Amino acid sequence: METLRERKKRETRLRISDIATGLFLHHGFDNVTVAEVARVADVSVNTVFNYFKTKEDLCLDRFDEAEQRLAVVVRNREPGESAVEAIRRDLLDAIDTRDWRYGTSEGSELVAKMINDSPSLVSRTRELHERREQVLAEALADEAGTDPGDITPKVIAAVTCAVVRVTASSYFQRRTAGETPDAILPDLRREVVRAFDLLERAAPDFARARPAR
Amino acid sequence: METLRERKKRETRLRISDIATGLFLHHGFDNVTVAEVARVADVSVNTVFNYFKTKEDLCLDRFDEAEQRLAVVVRNREPGESAVEAIRRDLLDAIDTRDWRYGTSEGSELVAKMINDSPSLVSRTRELHERREQVLAEALADEAGTDPGDITPKVIAAVTCAVVRVTASSYFQRRTAGETPDAILPDLRREVVRAFDLLERAAPDFARARPAR
Repeated sequence: METLRERKKRETRLRISDIATGLFLHHGFDNVTVAEVARVADVSVNTVFNYFKTKEDLCLDRFDEAEQRLAVVVRNREPGESAVEAIRRDLLDAIDTRDWRYGTSEGSELVAKMINDSPSLVSRTRELHERREQVLAEALADEAGTDPGDITPKVIAAVTCAVVRVTASSYFQRRTAGETPDAILPDLRREVVRAFDLLERAAPDFARARPAR
Repeated sequence: METLRERKKRETRLRISDIATGLFLHHGFDNVTVAEVARVADVSVNTVFNYFKTKEDLCLDRFDEAEQRLAVVVRNREPGESAVEAIRRDLLDAIDTRDWRYGTSEGSELVAKMINDSPSLVSRTRELHERREQVLAEALADEAGTDPGDITPKVIAAVTCAVVRVTASSYFQRRTAGETPDAILPDLRREVVRAFDLLERAAPDFARARPAR
């Protein structure tokens, strides 16, 4: 059970992060100081730094979740599902429900723009991509029980992450060029299905979970 | 024809870069200043900066070549060869001849260690990977004549670059763990063949060049 104190802390953290994200989206990440975030959130600068190590962390709370997401999807894959199939299902579900988690929801383009406009966030995003791939490769190696030196889980992680990354950046590019989600998402869905068809043909049974009894 | 002046400039540039790389490899990138490079090369600091915009550029001359390499290989692919087959041929050739160009030659591990030990070089390397993938995607789109919005060349570029990157990092990891090139390279070769078999199965005829008459 969450204590009252823990709940208060969680709420304060969320409030500071929400306020910071709003300010960053409106004014650009590099144009907002931590002092301004603290002022608008009505807390001290020290309080902000108690919750968030760096200014980047303020708007990247969801990065940790994004970093782990693919590995979590693989570890929780359904009976009879391969690793690649599980990721395909989760990505298509996000597109269909217009969820934010793969960067294909309304408003994702604002976050992407904020990131692209800030060199430090661009660099933080590259780190995210690198770690996401590593974490996925480890999950794949675990789940398939491959030898430590085996390059296969690394290759599958790299190519799967590549498709996920290209999907988000394609959404962002077309959205920025003025197309509507209604115009983009059906195309994107088709492309994702095609790309995953290719990946599944390439690695049909990697880390396939046992079928349900 | 190269003029005498041009040749002198090229030689000076190469000499400074060689000296800098040697110092970086021995002492670590972050422990060597541009002033020290200038002193050892017997030129002024200004001269160094005339040739190289930043300290990073001093040891990354080959980065530009690495950035363009895959796109060049695709554009120069042989009659009847697909884009992916051309890259496979070039990568396997580099492994077989122990050439440096994909990071699988004797000594590559020293360069990789120097990069990993320096945050600014790590960040520069991530940029290289990003740009290499973009340049390749553009070459693939050109050569296959796909529509501007088509995600396929981006996906193929991303997955191919992923395999190339994983190959180099696998070599580095095993080399750093004390294995010899003779032990690593046959395994790596097998893994590359397997990975490219998968990619070719996934995109068998993408940007296939016309057969020779």
